[in-house]
Amino acid sequence: MDNNVVAYIKSLSIDMINKAGSGHPGIVLSAAPIIYTIYAKHMNVNPKNPNWINRDRFIMSAGHGSALLYSTLYMAGFLSMGDLKDFRKIDSRTPGHPEIGLTPGVDMSTGPLGSGLASAVGIAIAEKKLNFNFPELIDYYTYVLCSDGDLMEGVSYEVASLAGTLKLNNLIVLYDSNNISLDGSTNYTFTENVRERFEALGWYTILVDSKNKINDIDKAIKKAKKSMLPTFIEVKTILGEGSLLENSNKVHGKPLTKEDITQLKKKLKFYENPFNVNKELLDYFRTQISNRSGKKYNEWMEKYNDYVLKNPSNAIEKFINQSYDLVLNEKSITFKKKETIRDANNRVMNMLSKRTPLLFGGSADLFESTKTYLEEKGNFSKDNYNGSNIWFGVREHAMGSILNGIAATGYMSFGSTFLSFSDYMRPSIRMSSLMNLPVTYIFTHDSISVGSDGPTHQPIEQLASLRMIPNLTVYRPADIKEILGSWKCIFELKKPSALIISKSETYTLRDTDIEKVKYGAYTVLKERKKIDAILLATGTEVETAVMVALELEKEGKDIRVVSMPSMTLFKNTTLKYRNEILPVGKKVIVIEAGSSFGLRDFVSNGRYLITLNEFGTSGSSDEVLDRMNFSLEKIIDRVRKLL
Amino acid sequence: MDNNVVAYIKSLSIDMINKAGSGHPGIVLSAAPIIYTIYAKHMNVNPKNPNWINRDRFIMSAGHGSALLYSTLYMAGFLSMGDLKDFRKIDSRTPGHPEIGLTPGVDMSTGPLGSGLASAVGIAIAEKKLNFNFPELIDYYTYVLCSDGDLMEGVSYEVASLAGTLKLNNLIVLYDSNNISLDGSTNYTFTENVRERFEALGWYTILVDSKNKINDIDKAIKKAKKSMLPTFIEVKTILGEGSLLENSNKVHGKPLTKEDITQLKKKLKFYENPFNVNKELLDYFRTQISNRSGKKYNEWMEKYNDYVLKNPSNAIEKFINQSYDLVLNEKSITFKKKETIRDANNRVMNMLSKRTPLLFGGSADLFESTKTYLEEKGNFSKDNYNGSNIWFGVREHAMGSILNGIAATGYMSFGSTFLSFSDYMRPSIRMSSLMNLPVTYIFTHDSISVGSDGPTHQPIEQLASLRMIPNLTVYRPADIKEILGSWKCIFELKKPSALIISKSETYTLRDTDIEKVKYGAYTVLKERKKIDAILLATGTEVETAVMVALELEKEGKDIRVVSMPSMTLFKNTTLKYRNEILPVGKKVIVIEAGSSFGLRDFVSNGRYLITLNEFGTSGSSDEVLDRMNFSLEKIIDRVRKLL
Repeated sequence: MDNNVVAYIKSLSIDMINKAGSGHPGIVLSAAPIIYTIYAKHMNVNPKNPNWINRDRFIMSAGHGSALLYSTLYMAGFLSMGDLKDFRKIDSRTPGHPEIGLTPGVDMSTGPLGSGLASAVGIAIAEKKLNFNFPELIDYYTYVLCSDGDLMEGVSYEVASLAGTLKLNNLIVLYDSNNISLDGSTNYTFTENVRERFEALGWYTILVDSKNKINDIDKAIKKAKKSMLPTFIEVKTILGEGSLLENSNKVHGKPLTKEDITQLKKKLKFYENPFNVNKELLDYFRTQISNRSGKKYNEWMEKYNDYVLKNPSNAIEKFINQSYDLVLNEKSITFKKKETIRDANNRVMNMLSKRTPLLFGGSADLFESTKTYLEEKGNFSKDNYNGSNIWFGVREHAMGSILNGIAATGYMSFGSTFLSFSDYMRPSIRMSSLMNLPVTYIFTHDSISVGSDGPTHQPIEQLASLRMIPNLTVYRPADIKEILGSWKCIFELKKPSALIISKSETYTLRDTDIEKVKYGAYTVLKERKKIDAILLATGTEVETAVMVALELEKEGKDIRVVSMPSMTLFKNTTLKYRNEILPVGKKVIVIEAGSSFGLRDFVSNGRYLITLNEFGTSGSSDEVLDRMNFSLEKIIDRVRKLL
Repeated sequence: MDNNVVAYIKSLSIDMINKAGSGHPGIVLSAAPIIYTIYAKHMNVNPKNPNWINRDRFIMSAGHGSALLYSTLYMAGFLSMGDLKDFRKIDSRTPGHPEIGLTPGVDMSTGPLGSGLASAVGIAIAEKKLNFNFPELIDYYTYVLCSDGDLMEGVSYEVASLAGTLKLNNLIVLYDSNNISLDGSTNYTFTENVRERFEALGWYTILVDSKNKINDIDKAIKKAKKSMLPTFIEVKTILGEGSLLENSNKVHGKPLTKEDITQLKKKLKFYENPFNVNKELLDYFRTQISNRSGKKYNEWMEKYNDYVLKNPSNAIEKFINQSYDLVLNEKSITFKKKETIRDANNRVMNMLSKRTPLLFGGSADLFESTKTYLEEKGNFSKDNYNGSNIWFGVREHAMGSILNGIAATGYMSFGSTFLSFSDYMRPSIRMSSLMNLPVTYIFTHDSISVGSDGPTHQPIEQLASLRMIPNLTVYRPADIKEILGSWKCIFELKKPSALIISKSETYTLRDTDIEKVKYGAYTVLKERKKIDAILLATGTEVETAVMVALELEKEGKDIRVVSMPSMTLFKNTTLKYRNEILPVGKKVIVIEAGSSFGLRDFVSNGRYLITLNEFGTSGSSDEVLDRMNFSLEKIIDRVRKLL
């Protein structure tokens, strides 16, 4: 019967791809026994409550296997036959690659290879921490189905090395091993011993290479559950098994021909019409899930109710609803006269983490420099799964993907590195933004003033290129008040965010304002009467702009200074507000130590942009600022000439 | 004596860091014996001809070890004591991290971890191909010194897997293994068995863990040279050995205290003043190099002269000078009435590769989709090092870094993937641009019209975010003539480039122009009399713009259409030319299927930008274009409303 269900899943998936006129039949035919065994024999899920916090997670890292996932989710009761028929149509619940939030039962958006597996490590990390805090209530497994392509991506190595170090034995990765990728045989590209690689990284590995796949995969998963290490199960398969094109890259990414489908369905003993309903097979599949998961779900509900009774503070409900008292205002923290922005951010984050357990994250080996360490919260390690500081190692891409997994589990995750190195994790930042997850990326050392480390460490284009990512809110605060205001927005909006902060010392400015950060930009130095010019600046350049304005005041100029901690939020305000801050007809001059891209909106002529569009250079901070015409003296001079 | 030289190198490096007031002493004190052994006992180099094509290469992948590299290069005769004293000063030849082109003897810019090791694989690949073509003339080794941090980066895994597959036995990696990274012990982050990992990837590995380091490293390198596989030599060291802070992260990135330096120099038996010249040690070091390398260099010159005599075509000189007859014009290729831009690019690239052997590159498992395969040129593989098509696997980041190594060796390298996935290789693209290397990144599937693969595969912000990278020339051609024009510029400028091409079919336009691509933008549809509006478009949107113009002509509107195949080049033209193309006061409307960032320069008001600033969605191409208001009908309507 198991084999009949697998054949049915294959058949439905092929029907979907055929009807859509696009999709990936290869993986459907190779990996169906794997996904079937996971769902039928192991997954604890409840289609009626797809967001149940203690559900087992399944991540289709090979996101192009979406048809296979959707047909399985139909079988499991998450989707309807109508959904399958709408595969890849606009507005359907069955898009080209899996999308979290859109499809019940999908635990992570995938498609770009490697990212699913990487984010799964984050989900497993979150389980470990939740399990520590709620041992009776949280004990889920995270299953991943991945392909050769996933494992070629560097991020798969990064997260696997960290998962091994952290001994995440709640993570079970199944590898659809067929030696074919899009362009053909992996002989030209990928001849490594994959299991040995995972063993070297501290994983338990199992090979399944038999005819009796379902039975052997089932046994392997049972062994994995007993392991003290994360488990990697290599399942030898044949890409596009049964197709006329089997075992070639031709079966990877295009619908099968009619002839091929006909012979395939004969082989699978499926003579039926497309999308035929087979109640017997459906019942067989669903009964297995409901017998196991239904019981577990009911027991869990009892434990949950019991927990709520015994714990008047009700920490689990608070966590699930993210309901923490976080009134943030000028009383929340003391303001120093002068402070580096990264130190100020450190104090704000530590204040926040004392008031909510939601903050969970770390640094890509730059705690010492980015100063995002949460004191008193401990290190997350194999010996302390309650730590809130994750040591990601020099693995920015892994960090981003893991933060996505952690955020998808209910935390407000964060991670820090230098702004220059945000490039390494751009694919993850894009995924956070697509999934609308509350991940906060903290990027310090935000300009050429990092100095003597030279151009590789001096961001130029990074700030603007982050602002371009749809749905990402970028903050570049000028001082501690704007940092507090930024975090206030981050906690209120619960959206993907990037917080760009400097290593430099600045004054806490008189008229910066916690509450006004949400408007994105506001006046921090009012003109006296008329406006000769408006200086629009962000981050450390706000202090510079104020100094420029005060200097030019001596020469009789009347200048307004506007701080723009978030261009993203400013663009979302009303036209009326924007015109109040930047009145039409007034000369606006932008000062920002980064690319001019995106700033042209605010000025009437490109020459009013005091920005940086060339690479930096190695030298002391002062030397570099002077060379790039960004020292205070030179900026005063440049503004003077523009007036 | 060897140990005295090592102590001297350490001493000089510490002096440099101390004088500069910044730098990284930890690696200086741990890795000095490694770099010394490589240079003194193995490297074939000629300080008088630092760009000798058959020199051995040394890549300091741990770029923060620049002081150690520079003091060694001083010892070897590449730099002066004055250079060492200027360490990290502006305009010096000894910048914060190594920079190719700036410092003789530096074979690759490094700093961002992982990238040096990754590019070294490209240098080794280039050697294999050159060695195939010029077996008597090219037989260099590539040495890499890397740190824990390098090996944590995913790209180090990606390239190592490929190097193992390709059996690059000309590559010797030495690992400064000390279990400390910036934030502290690697126990929290990196407990994998690194040598087992490299063995799993097909490498020969050796452990050096002894007091007699120089002797044992020397022996290990000798073994490596006999291996049929790439070699990974793990050298167990103590970070900051001899410092009061040894074996802790405190010694990683800050100058040592005066007290520490005093005791350290005592320990090293160096009582001398800073930057003391020790002629005896210098001679001992240089004699070793000149005895070995001098002989090899002279023999090589003989062989070279002999080769030139025997080969009237003189392929090696042609290669070194990149002097190939590449007159490109409308006779170079046939134009079809209609063709997809990727197919047209395929034909152009194949025409070019028949006329020059400089084109060497491949695809990150997307030959089938990007269509950048060079027919008749064969696959680069362990069995055919003469192939010109490299199968990078699903490893975009590795591809970019390897392309940098190949370009640094004299080829015009290229690599292709989907535009969406350019995010994965952004760090490498930045390095190409910083190093000014002739790498061409080919990114296809350049808009939301990829359709049913959904938003992960639909680029929005990528085109503009590439344009922002300093020193990168971005092309988005409209048809085969502009493709040819783009390649003409690429071959003439020999600069880092990104070629953004569509999978869609377009007409070959009547007035597109090979020669005008170099101006970045030009008129492809002239107005009849007056100008009601100018439509400025790129890529497939040029055809759209022409159709819009013709449609609105029926309604009496007089419209000019300007194609802008390269914003980068257009911005470099004279103001006079720009005003001819886009006369001041005329209404310009931009049509581009991507982010509006950077386009605001061309229009008088943001509402004249017909662009995309939100993520796409899964659906058929037509459905998606319609939903995003980018179907031809909707664009006609939007333009009409703007007139």
